[in-house]
Amino acid sequence: MLDDRLEKQVDSESKAGEEHMGLCNLIEERKQGRLYECLSDGFVRLVDIMGDDNAIVQAARVSYGAGTKKVSDDRNLIRYLMRNAHTSPFEMVEFKFHIRVPMDCWRQWIRHRTANVNEYSTRYSEAIDSADKTGVWRLQSTNNKQGSTGILEAWPEGWERDEKTRSIKGPDTHHKWSVRYKHLMPETPSQYLTEREAEFLSSARRLYEERLSMGIAREQARKDLPLSTYTEAYWKIDLHNLFHFLRLRIDKHAQKEIREYGEAMYKLIQPHVPLSCEAFQDYRVQAITFSGPELEIIRGLLGNSDNFKHRLSEREITEFNSKVRDIGLRITAGKEYAELD
Amino acid sequence: MLDDRLEKQVDSESKAGEEHMGLCNLIEERKQGRLYECLSDGFVRLVDIMGDDNAIVQAARVSYGAGTKKVSDDRNLIRYLMRNAHTSPFEMVEFKFHIRVPMDCWRQWIRHRTANVNEYSTRYSEAIDSADKTGVWRLQSTNNKQGSTGILEAWPEGWERDEKTRSIKGPDTHHKWSVRYKHLMPETPSQYLTEREAEFLSSARRLYEERLSMGIAREQARKDLPLSTYTEAYWKIDLHNLFHFLRLRIDKHAQKEIREYGEAMYKLIQPHVPLSCEAFQDYRVQAITFSGPELEIIRGLLGNSDNFKHRLSEREITEFNSKVRDIGLRITAGKEYAELD
Amino acid sequence: MLDDRLEKQVDSESKAGEEHMGLCNLIEERKQGRLYECLSDGFVRLVDIMGDDNAIVQAARVSYGAGTKKVSDDRNLIRYLMRNAHTSPFEMVEFKFHIRVPMDCWRQWIRHRTANVNEYSTRYSEAIDSADKTGVWRLQSTNNKQGSTGILEAWPEGWERDEKTRSIKGPDTHHKWSVRYKHLMPETPSQYLTEREAEFLSSARRLYEERLSMGIAREQARKDLPLSTYTEAYWKIDLHNLFHFLRLRIDKHAQKEIREYGEAMYKLIQPHVPLSCEAFQDYRVQAITFSGPELEIIRGLLGNSDNFKHRLSEREITEFNSKVRDIGLRITAGKEYAELD
Amino acid sequence: MLDDRLEKQVDSESKAGEEHMGLCNLIEERKQGRLYECLSDGFVRLVDIMGDDNAIVQAARVSYGAGTKKVSDDRNLIRYLMRNAHTSPFEMVEFKFHIRVPMDCWRQWIRHRTANVNEYSTRYSEAIDSADKTGVWRLQSTNNKQGSTGILEAWPEGWERDEKTRSIKGPDTHHKWSVRYKHLMPETPSQYLTEREAEFLSSARRLYEERLSMGIAREQARKDLPLSTYTEAYWKIDLHNLFHFLRLRIDKHAQKEIREYGEAMYKLIQPHVPLSCEAFQDYRVQAITFSGPELEIIRGLLGNSDNFKHRLSEREITEFNSKVRDIGLRITAGKEYAELD
Repeated sequence: MLDDRLEKQVDSESKAGEEHMGLCNLIEERKQGRLYECLSDGFVRLVDIMGDDNAIVQAARVSYGAGTKKVSDDRNLIRYLMRNAHTSPFEMVEFKFHIRVPMDCWRQWIRHRTANVNEYSTRYSEAIDSADKTGVWRLQSTNNKQGSTGILEAWPEGWERDEKTRSIKGPDTHHKWSVRYKHLMPETPSQYLTEREAEFLSSARRLYEERLSMGIAREQARKDLPLSTYTEAYWKIDLHNLFHFLRLRIDKHAQKEIREYGEAMYKLIQPHVPLSCEAFQDYRVQAITFSGPELEIIRGLLGNSDNFKHRLSEREITEFNSKVRDIGLRITAGKEYAELD
Repeated sequence: MLDDRLEKQVDSESKAGEEHMGLCNLIEERKQGRLYECLSDGFVRLVDIMGDDNAIVQAARVSYGAGTKKVSDDRNLIRYLMRNAHTSPFEMVEFKFHIRVPMDCWRQWIRHRTANVNEYSTRYSEAIDSADKTGVWRLQSTNNKQGSTGILEAWPEGWERDEKTRSIKGPDTHHKWSVRYKHLMPETPSQYLTEREAEFLSSARRLYEERLSMGIAREQARKDLPLSTYTEAYWKIDLHNLFHFLRLRIDKHAQKEIREYGEAMYKLIQPHVPLSCEAFQDYRVQAITFSGPELEIIRGLLGNSDNFKHRLSEREITEFNSKVRDIGLRITAGKEYAELD
Repeated sequence: MLDDRLEKQVDSESKAGEEHMGLCNLIEERKQGRLYECLSDGFVRLVDIMGDDNAIVQAARVSYGAGTKKVSDDRNLIRYLMRNAHTSPFEMVEFKFHIRVPMDCWRQWIRHRTANVNEYSTRYSEAIDSADKTGVWRLQSTNNKQGSTGILEAWPEGWERDEKTRSIKGPDTHHKWSVRYKHLMPETPSQYLTEREAEFLSSARRLYEERLSMGIAREQARKDLPLSTYTEAYWKIDLHNLFHFLRLRIDKHAQKEIREYGEAMYKLIQPHVPLSCEAFQDYRVQAITFSGPELEIIRGLLGNSDNFKHRLSEREITEFNSKVRDIGLRITAGKEYAELD
Repeated sequence: MLDDRLEKQVDSESKAGEEHMGLCNLIEERKQGRLYECLSDGFVRLVDIMGDDNAIVQAARVSYGAGTKKVSDDRNLIRYLMRNAHTSPFEMVEFKFHIRVPMDCWRQWIRHRTANVNEYSTRYSEAIDSADKTGVWRLQSTNNKQGSTGILEAWPEGWERDEKTRSIKGPDTHHKWSVRYKHLMPETPSQYLTEREAEFLSSARRLYEERLSMGIAREQARKDLPLSTYTEAYWKIDLHNLFHFLRLRIDKHAQKEIREYGEAMYKLIQPHVPLSCEAFQDYRVQAITFSGPELEIIRGLLGNSDNFKHRLSEREITEFNSKVRDIGLRITAGKEYAELD
């Protein structure tokens, strides 16, 4: 995507200077592993760093003073800190990112309040002329209110694509392609949605620019920009709070879009705090927590009791079965452990 | 607006229950001064309060212990705290609001990180079917990059409205109304923009609903919602941080939209902390600060010196002249004080 | 302790008024379950509350909008929020406490930065004339650098108590009681320390008051006050952050002194947010987390593999064994699971 | 002080290694302007820096995008940001300090909640064997409850120093020096207090070490340490919040002890953010704010009105007179402006 933008810029005679240089730098940074591209036109760039694994150890040793002489090595100390939620030494490391992200995704991002932020202002400047474009359309999950599952492949009930009449019909929709543009008619429902998206984004931009051309204040002209419009920001955060962000945002329940950014950030910081990242994986990402009521059941199972009474909700039973399956728990005395229901 | 919505609801047979009750409550709360409407379809509601002017005094007296016996009364103590930036007692009062606000405005709002927030989730639920509609179109300020000034009244250069051909033409636009719908042709540029807005908002909603009807996940379908789409949130904040928010957001440089909300919140809290609000007005809102370099000039002027050398930037000179004019400063010895330039 | 202070006050003719009333109120509040005494002369008082379990549910439902109609009841919703670290609705409940606490303990307390605080100022007022007195002297833990274990019962090596010479001797110490005050000679090492403490605290107070009597500024006179000196504060915090505080401070690794306060606070809030407290117990306090490396071992054990290779540190092995013992894990195929070493 | 400690260490055969090296580094850092000593045995060290004036400009330009092309230079931009309380770009710079500070002073320090902290733990390790010693004893201010004024020079009423009887007597005190130690008898009240302080600090340390030697847990043994005991910490903060700290702590109303630290920190950061510091001085430190009611009076005075009615409290009148005197305000028409009373 950066390359596409660079190409366009070089082609265009009118803008050669500053912006071109900006993009070239970005491309250079990507080569050196300091920038990852995300979504259709976004990126995360690691701009500045304060501290590393050593800084964490150093801060912890101030806390522990002479008392820690026996902690044999830095790796163990960092793992001890992570395991026991001694979080303050991780706050001694700070990362500054430059990100380019759709406003939709940014709305989730900014809910983390423990970072420093400078965002591109569409009161001061014209909105960035780029919006996120969807490649793959995901279906609503039926058992998870807030998730998606699978992708749109077939035309849903009530929809029809008719080659002969060159039309696509839905319950409230009827699009037709003239003979001349017949070849533009989408094949798949996914292509159809992508085309509708492109058309909409372009009409949204035209509306925005019309308002500006009529002299309307930027702060007002922007009011109907689509949430997919890109924004940019500097975002600075300490490692403890970044881990908190990452745990939530690289989780499989996080929305795919922000997960791309989370994963990119993780790749950017890992080389600078490898021991901390290892501990983060072991004690946060890969860890499993059993609740009090779940432990009661496990104690019963492992104690070979027949007592399967429990007070889990339906949803918890599903979660419990999945955890138990994951660790391979079986009843000891010959009986197989049938999942709870 | 609440009334409009109520009317629609009552008309509609399908939704009579819960939502109707919700609206009725809102209308009742408006009557009792616990809710103010903002913009075309938003509101602020004061949901809960912890503490009042007394709670501030009580907290301050813990700090000062027996040491404050001489502070003659609560009002003086509150004024003393405000004047001297002893902010912590004001943190002992907490307000919880329920707000309905366009996402555009919410994007500015949420930048204040010291509040507790629960926002309506368009991952869990269908986006609210309402977007902010513009009554008055403001022009871009030329001397303030981030502001607006005046309103759009005449057709800008390059635009033409032709009654005969029933068309409105702009540099990149040509709209025509058929004889039949001639009466729908906007009279003024402002009406033109409002009509374009309505048309766009309705196409945006249709697109969103088409995606949902095809089974697309809510988290993805929402990606192109216009920023003007309404969202709702609970927003809880202590009085110190609320004053900080209000100072920035009821300021004349704040964007008109968020200012409406700021002013509504101020009206909602004022009866509960009247002494604090009075002090806030006197020591924050109505106060004027002179910088070091400005004070040098004033000392020169009042000392009757002819020395007008200064190190103010052009923009600061403007600001300085305006402050000096405000307080009516004149040179003492007969000479009028001509503004700096 | 409150009663002792009340008695003293009533005895003293000089202070009858305001302070007496203050104490009476405290005693009344204790009766009504709004105040718990802690340590030798401290307390926690619940002064004000915003919200309850319902407020959490209400805030969550704004987030989920119509999307949550199926969540059958409030208890399940609260448990779901706690389990999945959807913490923001818990921030909608706020508690304000009045506490009286030794500065030593307060130094740990104040490290939690997400609360609002007004502390008694020893710049403004004379320091509170009370210091925490120790009943039970605990021994340094040998395997936990930061903990204590057991209590001091016997005279340590190098110490001697001689009834005949009426003296107590230690490596660097020699105390003698004259015949007349022989009965004051401590019996046990614990009594000895308590007596030394009393003597020291009284000399510390005399020094402080001497400085004040010579006109020294309070801000300087206080510099050598013992950390055990009591201070008072208003402390206001939301439920999410309070749970975080409590999890750390009612843990068995927390220092006994602050644990008393943590437990008192828990008892104070529990009646107001019973469902949240139940969920807190189940998903935080009673929960056990297994790390990635621990899960590998468990998977091996339960899979009946002989592969006990692992990458746990010595300290982790101890922790792991204790967790495994707790849930009663055994190897499936007849072999007993011997603890790791 | 560092030199004294170094000297002692080199003398002592027992500790040559690590600690010696640590001190040498501190002395080296002092030479290079990265460390300032404070009080009798404290210091502030600048350990790490993220960003500088350029980073602020860079962050601001992201906010303003192309919109700021006209802001002629970085200095003007930084001044504009400071003047208009656009604080977020200043958050993009981060400083990490290592400090050694008496707990008394640290108690004030830690009230600033927007920093990252790792403090020396006296649960893990033996308390630092150093307490702050007072050179100059200040008198309680009579008109400022929380301040000091002047220094103790003469023996207060009720005190007597008698050379003949080699005694110093106060209302509740009677000290005598034997012929042999007569030369140790303090000359001045200040020397007397300093001697009393030394004696007390040494008895406090003996008590602490006695407890440890009897096996008492560090967490409990520490309970009576004097507040003057030194602690160490890493303290990391962004520039915006540091300026907030500094404004309060280098103010003439701040306690002298913490002011020393504030001034040292300011000297440490100034070379790294000179433009920001200049703006901080001009728009924060040197600025004067007039409240609404004060401006009314000024408008009256400058408008040559005789209307001196006002609603200032007694204390505000004093503050107002001092500000007005500072800028040299006089009534325009010949009449001198007599201060309000």
